[in-house]
Amino acid sequence: MEPIKVTVIGGGSSYTPELLEGLLAEADVLSIKEIWMVDIPQGERKLQIMDALAKRMVKKSKHDIKIVSTLDRRAAIKGATYVITQIRVGQLEMRRHDEYISIKHGVIGQETTGAGGFMKALRTIPVILGICKEMEELAPDAWLLNFTNPAGIVTEAVLKHSTIKVVGLCNNPINYYKKFANTYDVAMDEVRINFIGINHLIWITGLYIKGKSHIQDVLTGKSASYEAANIPDFGWDHDFLQSLGAIPCGYHKYYYQTDTILQKQLLEYEKNETRADQVKKVEAELFELYQNPGLDKKPKALEQRGGAYYSEAAVRLIRDIHLNTQQVHTLNVRNNGAISCLPDDVCVEINCVVENHQITPLQTLEPPAQIRGLLQVVKAYEELTVEAAVTGDKGIAVQALTIHPLIPSAEKAKQILEEMLAVNEPYLNWQV
Amino acid sequence: MEPIKVTVIGGGSSYTPELLEGLLAEADVLSIKEIWMVDIPQGERKLQIMDALAKRMVKKSKHDIKIVSTLDRRAAIKGATYVITQIRVGQLEMRRHDEYISIKHGVIGQETTGAGGFMKALRTIPVILGICKEMEELAPDAWLLNFTNPAGIVTEAVLKHSTIKVVGLCNNPINYYKKFANTYDVAMDEVRINFIGINHLIWITGLYIKGKSHIQDVLTGKSASYEAANIPDFGWDHDFLQSLGAIPCGYHKYYYQTDTILQKQLLEYEKNETRADQVKKVEAELFELYQNPGLDKKPKALEQRGGAYYSEAAVRLIRDIHLNTQQVHTLNVRNNGAISCLPDDVCVEINCVVENHQITPLQTLEPPAQIRGLLQVVKAYEELTVEAAVTGDKGIAVQALTIHPLIPSAEKAKQILEEMLAVNEPYLNWQV
Amino acid sequence: MEPIKVTVIGGGSSYTPELLEGLLAEADVLSIKEIWMVDIPQGERKLQIMDALAKRMVKKSKHDIKIVSTLDRRAAIKGATYVITQIRVGQLEMRRHDEYISIKHGVIGQETTGAGGFMKALRTIPVILGICKEMEELAPDAWLLNFTNPAGIVTEAVLKHSTIKVVGLCNNPINYYKKFANTYDVAMDEVRINFIGINHLIWITGLYIKGKSHIQDVLTGKSASYEAANIPDFGWDHDFLQSLGAIPCGYHKYYYQTDTILQKQLLEYEKNETRADQVKKVEAELFELYQNPGLDKKPKALEQRGGAYYSEAAVRLIRDIHLNTQQVHTLNVRNNGAISCLPDDVCVEINCVVENHQITPLQTLEPPAQIRGLLQVVKAYEELTVEAAVTGDKGIAVQALTIHPLIPSAEKAKQILEEMLAVNEPYLNWQV
Amino acid sequence: MEPIKVTVIGGGSSYTPELLEGLLAEADVLSIKEIWMVDIPQGERKLQIMDALAKRMVKKSKHDIKIVSTLDRRAAIKGATYVITQIRVGQLEMRRHDEYISIKHGVIGQETTGAGGFMKALRTIPVILGICKEMEELAPDAWLLNFTNPAGIVTEAVLKHSTIKVVGLCNNPINYYKKFANTYDVAMDEVRINFIGINHLIWITGLYIKGKSHIQDVLTGKSASYEAANIPDFGWDHDFLQSLGAIPCGYHKYYYQTDTILQKQLLEYEKNETRADQVKKVEAELFELYQNPGLDKKPKALEQRGGAYYSEAAVRLIRDIHLNTQQVHTLNVRNNGAISCLPDDVCVEINCVVENHQITPLQTLEPPAQIRGLLQVVKAYEELTVEAAVTGDKGIAVQALTIHPLIPSAEKAKQILEEMLAVNEPYLNWQV
Repeated sequence: MEPIKVTVIGGGSSYTPELLEGLLAEADVLSIKEIWMVDIPQGERKLQIMDALAKRMVKKSKHDIKIVSTLDRRAAIKGATYVITQIRVGQLEMRRHDEYISIKHGVIGQETTGAGGFMKALRTIPVILGICKEMEELAPDAWLLNFTNPAGIVTEAVLKHSTIKVVGLCNNPINYYKKFANTYDVAMDEVRINFIGINHLIWITGLYIKGKSHIQDVLTGKSASYEAANIPDFGWDHDFLQSLGAIPCGYHKYYYQTDTILQKQLLEYEKNETRADQVKKVEAELFELYQNPGLDKKPKALEQRGGAYYSEAAVRLIRDIHLNTQQVHTLNVRNNGAISCLPDDVCVEINCVVENHQITPLQTLEPPAQIRGLLQVVKAYEELTVEAAVTGDKGIAVQALTIHPLIPSAEKAKQILEEMLAVNEPYLNWQV
Repeated sequence: MEPIKVTVIGGGSSYTPELLEGLLAEADVLSIKEIWMVDIPQGERKLQIMDALAKRMVKKSKHDIKIVSTLDRRAAIKGATYVITQIRVGQLEMRRHDEYISIKHGVIGQETTGAGGFMKALRTIPVILGICKEMEELAPDAWLLNFTNPAGIVTEAVLKHSTIKVVGLCNNPINYYKKFANTYDVAMDEVRINFIGINHLIWITGLYIKGKSHIQDVLTGKSASYEAANIPDFGWDHDFLQSLGAIPCGYHKYYYQTDTILQKQLLEYEKNETRADQVKKVEAELFELYQNPGLDKKPKALEQRGGAYYSEAAVRLIRDIHLNTQQVHTLNVRNNGAISCLPDDVCVEINCVVENHQITPLQTLEPPAQIRGLLQVVKAYEELTVEAAVTGDKGIAVQALTIHPLIPSAEKAKQILEEMLAVNEPYLNWQV
Repeated sequence: MEPIKVTVIGGGSSYTPELLEGLLAEADVLSIKEIWMVDIPQGERKLQIMDALAKRMVKKSKHDIKIVSTLDRRAAIKGATYVITQIRVGQLEMRRHDEYISIKHGVIGQETTGAGGFMKALRTIPVILGICKEMEELAPDAWLLNFTNPAGIVTEAVLKHSTIKVVGLCNNPINYYKKFANTYDVAMDEVRINFIGINHLIWITGLYIKGKSHIQDVLTGKSASYEAANIPDFGWDHDFLQSLGAIPCGYHKYYYQTDTILQKQLLEYEKNETRADQVKKVEAELFELYQNPGLDKKPKALEQRGGAYYSEAAVRLIRDIHLNTQQVHTLNVRNNGAISCLPDDVCVEINCVVENHQITPLQTLEPPAQIRGLLQVVKAYEELTVEAAVTGDKGIAVQALTIHPLIPSAEKAKQILEEMLAVNEPYLNWQV
Repeated sequence: MEPIKVTVIGGGSSYTPELLEGLLAEADVLSIKEIWMVDIPQGERKLQIMDALAKRMVKKSKHDIKIVSTLDRRAAIKGATYVITQIRVGQLEMRRHDEYISIKHGVIGQETTGAGGFMKALRTIPVILGICKEMEELAPDAWLLNFTNPAGIVTEAVLKHSTIKVVGLCNNPINYYKKFANTYDVAMDEVRINFIGINHLIWITGLYIKGKSHIQDVLTGKSASYEAANIPDFGWDHDFLQSLGAIPCGYHKYYYQTDTILQKQLLEYEKNETRADQVKKVEAELFELYQNPGLDKKPKALEQRGGAYYSEAAVRLIRDIHLNTQQVHTLNVRNNGAISCLPDDVCVEINCVVENHQITPLQTLEPPAQIRGLLQVVKAYEELTVEAAVTGDKGIAVQALTIHPLIPSAEKAKQILEEMLAVNEPYLNWQV
């Protein structure tokens, strides 16, 4: 097998040690020769810290891998086999604005769902498409693995506006496998899940343990589902789950338990302690740790950061693409009719067969109306978000927010958008 | 042409004089021989008043038409050529509950849209399907013209659960033709409108006057659209209309201007003066007038009741079915792919060619995402509402309300449903 | 109403007197000011004859209409309100080749169906697209009415490769209305027909006389359907019609009675008397008549030429577009989902509502498999034919013929194509 | 793992030793406890021979497996884990009629394609549905593995008319993997093929060896595709393959090379040596061998019988279902939108992910028109064939044959059907 070059865009991310750990564990299988980490000038300090830590980790691993950290994105992309994007345009400061402006207007303030995710998409898509343009020139055969949130919307932008092979990945699906493997005390491979939906809005329509259906266990409350640590957990109404007929994901709470969560967010807002504030603190502490010259592995504390098993999912995907294994992964890919109630050209998150030359979605069954309706309206919002990000059309941006189920009206949509555009002005090229 | 029998179910409705006026105007063309008016025991007093008025109106018209008023629904249906349903199950008292319970929970309280329309559908569908069963036995070839709200949902229930030929009618579309004919000072026939949507959620995607497009006039505010008298009017944001790319109908305000309208409803709620209260007063005054033995025509005051041009739309439809004219009407019919982003078996409100033996929808063009998303989620809500009404399944009822864009969460959906089921208990057969 | 200019491309066609007769009859209603007739240099003699006849006809009609005959196509198109294409690229000589090469290879030889229609499409599409290009420049708002065969394929080429408003017309549908009006002794307007299909392959799935279904009359043989004079008539097997569940059109005989018709064609081939030979004679006689300076109207003999009621259908369509009547016509238009088992972007022949600004197909019901399968494969052949004509790709041409149900194999397809391309060389730009 | 019971219906088939060999090889992995072989009274002699051979084979294998051979189908089905159907209703005698009647009428005479396959389906479907009825009662959770031809049509009948979990299997796909693995000298697992189509009409739209596309090798003739030994091989026209853009399967020759193959069949017909005649001889010889008391394994001669690797494909499928491996197999399953230009409820042959509880098709990309058209018409023929078999409706049977691309006309369809029904009378319950 030919030696490969892996490029991590957003190398200064606090997640990088997790990703490095995973890559090092599979370094032989993947024949990794070089890992390039690239960041923007504002992230230079963090990148340096990470560069040092990465080199310590490589040294400890005894692999013959070259670590290159740089601000020169073109050099990093050139000749890459895999490009991984884990960027945060505007950093946590802008995430904080996303949350505060939303909550201030009485709507859910969240990194990927609702107005917050919308604004993050507007900031992020132009940067990602810039990366794709460079890849088309400098690494046209590379796979782009996008972990940047909102992962589904960002991946859709690439699918619609670039020729690069792209796949979007979220750590949500792997956590379900881990959770149920643990619940039923079986190997992960003995857990089988039918998913339908889009990133951060997936429903589980089938759960099988060793070939036997166990979905009723969860719907009736006999077993618990996976609940992400970063989403408030007030428990599920099991009557509701049974009439839903499917297991919702954590992000569904923003839709199904809106009032309760909003109340909690309002309290955090009052105390200046929303999720962005919390993450800022955690990140500061992490970078403190990363600078310790004695540290040569991923610190335990990173696990509390959220994004559990992110590295495992990512590295398994790279491995299965690379080894052409035909394994089933749950990924963000072009729909092509796999969910027949959605347009062909949108991004969906479903089970796929992974090969080196293609990633192919498995056909899903028509979901019941309670799933279909919500899925269709949120997907239409996402399509409009991609269009707004690419065209810079403020009217389309208002339309996107207006039909989002968490925004109560066009009036509110417009107010929120105006405030968000104002603080995001440095990151946009819009004719506001 | 063979003489025909017209049966009006809900004959005691305050609208009946309008309908009678229309039928009498076309009595010769239609060869009307008998008009049967039927009501339930609780409506007997109103029916008697209407019977007397109807006979005075017929006498004045000099037509040889027999008026029969009865509580015997089977006798009224037997051998009918056209059956018209204009019933209000639970009467205005229950409508009042629909509105008050909704507003109390901080959501729009409205006769057809949102939680109010949902509850009205649950009460109404079993009664309408009972009528259909009798028609299948006693008048299997008759056309059922449904004017009972929520007209789209009720018509869908009949389309899915009966073999009777049915068409749903709303006075909304005709009012657009009237309005634009007036604006541009042309005959109604020179106004052409492309509609897409479902009852009380239709968008105008094309407006042509004498073959020239004039939709931009309305989108930019140069011309005004029709605004129904019974829906609060705070004006439109023309930037919003332009990015929408279509003219919304009056009921869209509940979705696009939710906050503003809800504020108004809360004030009315405080003062015990919601729409139901207002209509109750108007109705009482109307029946006062109807009893006047000197009255032999539709009183002017009826026009303020709402439902403008309802009679004209209804009688034109009956005439065009009867005379097999192939005229284009905007009607509630089975989709069959005419709106390709909705299921085949649902009810949509679109332009149709009317013939005696069939009513055929015109194919529509794929709407933009801002229309598609809202349309799909509200239609999914309607499908679930029909399912809940037919099965009496409380879980499905919660799912229906939960995905409705005007209900903020599953929790709220459940609370509202519980309260509504409690007061509606006499009208339902549910295992609550 | 503003005065209009009508442009007839292929003015020297023997059909022109029929078209002129129709236009003159509606000249006032349409405010026709000018009729331009254009032809190619090889057709100049015929055009001169037609010019003289046209002027005599106008004179007799007493209308104030200017007749202009010219070889300058751009001048003829400039500022036109309606452009009518009735051209025959390669004239009857090439039609003769189409028929003889087909029959020689043991397959149906026919002007529009099978290999003959295929070759006619290859010759014709580039010319029609050239006309469209000029219209885009010189008369961008004009309607193009295409009567040139194969009308469905040629119209599809325009729909896919031009921005001009186009509609394709065939005289087949009007003949059904005439026939059944006559059979049941009712006015044409009391006959209603549900069509599904594509040009020269339409099925009648509903036949209503005064609102009553009469399709069984035809399926059982109690009534006869319309049978075009130019298609051999060996009668229908009524068992077959009943299991088909629909009335086939005349051209279906080439598919359902292939052996019998082929046998007849082989005899004609032996005697040098195929349809092209017959038409050549008729045409020569017609032009003899047309030169008679005493002739100032359409001669009776033209009726035997075929194309009955062609003028009536054409002039009614122009009138209904022009007067914006919303009448129902059966036309060749973009599918857009009206026949849901066919792609959106293809041309279908179905009932449409005609307005000045748009022609809108009526939604059809899903046809049974016996109709669907044949319709789909012939439509796929047509799509490939358009692609072959536009790209000049010989491989695609072979693929088109190969899947045509009347061509037995790819081998045969290739042989036929080679011979046809050879004789058509002067009309093509292919890299053969 | 619980011990399982495998039931082979048509146990007296000459293929049984191959299947047994495969099952014995995997007996431990599958925990096979019992193999039941069932046949009809006419097959009793063959079943006895097979029973003896099976017992010798088991003895040699040293597995503790009970062989039960019986004419009592209900007993054999009761409690089965897997039911395998490999029956031939009417035996080779009726296959001979299928071929001779077809060829006599000048159309392809073949076991599964065209009129021959049609008649085989009519005979077979009622028997298979009878087996399913017994399974619904006696082994409702068992998987039915159908290897009976025409496998796609028979499987579709089960999918539409039974609740039993069914999958249809053909040896065609595995032979492609074998062939290309051999050509490129790689392991079978390194060959990846994208298939689209239906049984015996599949196209290869993608061929990847170790992740690199090699389809052009075959389209240009640089590499050869797999050609089944039982289908005449006159080579491919590589120009044709390139414009097709996909690798056709062997059965495509009946469509693309019809004349050439028909000529060959006519010669065989003259000499009384069609495929049925040849197989009859081979079978007689095989049963001669099977009776040899010294034989305790599959004889070499069986390989010449056709159906190469049939056992390997079958046993791998059973193993992967049983072990719930999520491996990709090419199978006959319900479409559900995986091929979006075909109806949802039909049977297609495509790549699927195999699990114990479900077999899920992978989504395919929209095929080009040259594939789509032929695929759609043959599938429509198959749908009508299933309908004819289930209803016994002769009219539908004529419609099925009429639209089949290998039957030239409705007249021919009717003649062939009449003759076939006459000789098949003992196997049908039709009201002829």
